[in-house]
Amino acid sequence: MTKEQQFKDYVMDRLPEYYDYLRIPGVSAQGTGIDATVDWLKNKFAEVGAKKVEVWHELGGNPVVYAEFAGHSDKTVLFYNHYDVQPPEPLDEWESEPFEPTERAGKLYARGVADDKGELISRLAIIQYYQENGGLPSKMKFVVEGQEEVGSPTIQDYVHAHKEQLAADACIWEGGGKDANEAFQITAGLKGVVSFDMTVETAEKDLHSSTASYADNAAWRLVQALNSLKDASGQVLVAGFYDDVKPLEAAAQKAVEEMEFNGQAIKEQFGLKRPFVTDKPAYALINTPTMTINGLSSGYEGAGVKTVIPRRALAKFDCRLVPDQEPRKIFNLIRAHLDQHGFEDVKITFNIGEPPFRTSLEDPFVKLNIETAQEIYGAEHTTVIPNSAGSGPAAQFVEELGVPLVEIGIGYGGNGPHAPNEHIRLQDYRDGSWFLYQLLNKYAVK
Amino acid sequence: MTKEQQFKDYVMDRLPEYYDYLRIPGVSAQGTGIDATVDWLKNKFAEVGAKKVEVWHELGGNPVVYAEFAGHSDKTVLFYNHYDVQPPEPLDEWESEPFEPTERAGKLYARGVADDKGELISRLAIIQYYQENGGLPSKMKFVVEGQEEVGSPTIQDYVHAHKEQLAADACIWEGGGKDANEAFQITAGLKGVVSFDMTVETAEKDLHSSTASYADNAAWRLVQALNSLKDASGQVLVAGFYDDVKPLEAAAQKAVEEMEFNGQAIKEQFGLKRPFVTDKPAYALINTPTMTINGLSSGYEGAGVKTVIPRRALAKFDCRLVPDQEPRKIFNLIRAHLDQHGFEDVKITFNIGEPPFRTSLEDPFVKLNIETAQEIYGAEHTTVIPNSAGSGPAAQFVEELGVPLVEIGIGYGGNGPHAPNEHIRLQDYRDGSWFLYQLLNKYAVK
Repeated sequence: MTKEQQFKDYVMDRLPEYYDYLRIPGVSAQGTGIDATVDWLKNKFAEVGAKKVEVWHELGGNPVVYAEFAGHSDKTVLFYNHYDVQPPEPLDEWESEPFEPTERAGKLYARGVADDKGELISRLAIIQYYQENGGLPSKMKFVVEGQEEVGSPTIQDYVHAHKEQLAADACIWEGGGKDANEAFQITAGLKGVVSFDMTVETAEKDLHSSTASYADNAAWRLVQALNSLKDASGQVLVAGFYDDVKPLEAAAQKAVEEMEFNGQAIKEQFGLKRPFVTDKPAYALINTPTMTINGLSSGYEGAGVKTVIPRRALAKFDCRLVPDQEPRKIFNLIRAHLDQHGFEDVKITFNIGEPPFRTSLEDPFVKLNIETAQEIYGAEHTTVIPNSAGSGPAAQFVEELGVPLVEIGIGYGGNGPHAPNEHIRLQDYRDGSWFLYQLLNKYAVK
Repeated sequence: MTKEQQFKDYVMDRLPEYYDYLRIPGVSAQGTGIDATVDWLKNKFAEVGAKKVEVWHELGGNPVVYAEFAGHSDKTVLFYNHYDVQPPEPLDEWESEPFEPTERAGKLYARGVADDKGELISRLAIIQYYQENGGLPSKMKFVVEGQEEVGSPTIQDYVHAHKEQLAADACIWEGGGKDANEAFQITAGLKGVVSFDMTVETAEKDLHSSTASYADNAAWRLVQALNSLKDASGQVLVAGFYDDVKPLEAAAQKAVEEMEFNGQAIKEQFGLKRPFVTDKPAYALINTPTMTINGLSSGYEGAGVKTVIPRRALAKFDCRLVPDQEPRKIFNLIRAHLDQHGFEDVKITFNIGEPPFRTSLEDPFVKLNIETAQEIYGAEHTTVIPNSAGSGPAAQFVEELGVPLVEIGIGYGGNGPHAPNEHIRLQDYRDGSWFLYQLLNKYAVK
């Protein structure tokens, strides 16, 4: 048996031992299962040989689990993951229970398995393998936070407070994996995000709809405000929204041109029924900011008929931001837009903000990632992404710790994170673990 | 003690005996409590001396309760009421339990007490009074249906099938009462209504919002479709929507001009935070059709952050119609509008439709109502309304049975039907019952 096969068999055999982690419903948005997840992690890090395990809670928010492992080289690799997951709703769209890991046709289904419990499981299984085969090649540190899915409101404070303790030579971010073309992705940045709620209140009581000939309606008022924000082509109409968008650097522009965006595959994966909102999807993924309605709620939403004028209406939003857009500035521009367009009565409340972040594709650690991927998957199956379309608190890590940062992992384009039936493919788990193992081996001796 | 005071004391003393009727959660939209309400009514009609009580269910839908009382004159008065009520949601906005009648400060709170269980209670208490004081002055018939709040899908079939049995000289509709100026209203018609749901589906799965740079969003798509339906002033933009609106007849126009629309009182009652959508609210109530969003639902509507692209979005609608608009025709015009504006993918489904209806203010029974009200309340506190702003299946009754039809009752402008904390004022219950008692006495000898 080759060493590769032996390694892959090993991590696959370990996988079911981690199902308990997937069973804990640690939903930060709903405040459930946090303590149980922290306990599980603390015990597991100790079990796989951490020389130090700490639970940080002194700065508030859900606790941060920190672990430190000894290693042979003088290099230190820092891993960032989060233990919280998205709410499982809508429950009736899951084919198996969201918190009961279920294997079907080579896939493992569970809320959070892709984003990002499966990533941490892969990393822990690799550490187990190292422990049973002569020890870790480098020192490793883990920061596992519990509020990533609600915008990481405290992690930057913890990173700042524990700056010396977190010192490292490179940082591997929460996850990554295969793109829609089955190429392995090396990603060197993140979009930013700002999330806010928009509310309209037109009355203190719901009214009978027979009064609609004279009384205003919160739902209609919200629709008017929403419609003022975007034109029919999807362009955001908020003055100044695009002002801070920075042109891509040459290497990043080249990477975008080389990216294969398999629109057909995405359409099939998600059953998209509408055309794409852009004719440059690869560029848009990297460097186009977005304004997304995450949810709408107003009045009577149930079955049958209720002839009421809603007194309140809610829209939930996120905007994905690109360098150098700032979350608070974008929020303030939207407020100014509403005021300028006669929507002073429409309220917006800030939920979370994370700045965008992009590293140089010329960095040696980024280059080692690319070389390793090209060796394992072949150059034609390796994709370099200047920044992910997702968000996270990476900018703070890079600024505080001065480390190069990449996102690599065990996912693929069809994981369905945040949606019902979130899953990973077992093959990706196996192959992505092998990639990380090879990368860590190479980095130790570089 | 005057006869008036003795009568009023009598109906007030009877009121608590009817609280059990208010306790039954007969919600047609949710399919609860229907059998229990029918049983209660059947027993109550027998208890107050009906010579015939029938439960009609042969044509499907919730049963219709029919009752017939003997009376001295050769005239017959037909009463229409409904025993179903609106859903009680949102429950957390009720100050007392919706299905536990609660008196506070001269008001009686319960779901359905205004619309229209309190009206039937008043009518039954009057019958009790007649039975204990020499019998009913005329024959009386009651039709109490169980699906008014979901658009009365079957009542016209029952009326047609029982046409001979329902023969009458005049019809008193479900309810009415005081307007915002505390004037007693005589109403001689109803607006029509068409209710429909609008749904957009852009994908088979919710997407992570990081894909919003290329993937469409059901909530945004719905907003665009909604916005195409109305302009900023509230004018409906659907071609042909206003084509069948008939000018008011002279007597109706005069009544509209005499109506006092106390905008300030309405604003205070409902805590309105926006200006009225018309500068002719009295006319609008009578003869302006509406298009109301009753509810919106899409994606994540809970607390906190969920960065998802909704795959589905729903808007629930009703349009109040005026003579001679037809529910199905209006629905078809909206479908055509969506198609013409590029929203072929936006689905609409028909829920209910009821045609509008307006009788002549010169009819002798209508005139008797006006005279009686002027005697009791004074001419300056009597208002004549060509048609209610609400809807109901009255048109079918008038057409099948050839009867004059009025709406009078025990409500007031602040009842809050369909909203949390629905209630009646006990004073209105007392006074409105006295009005009806006087009207029935006069009609019998006219």
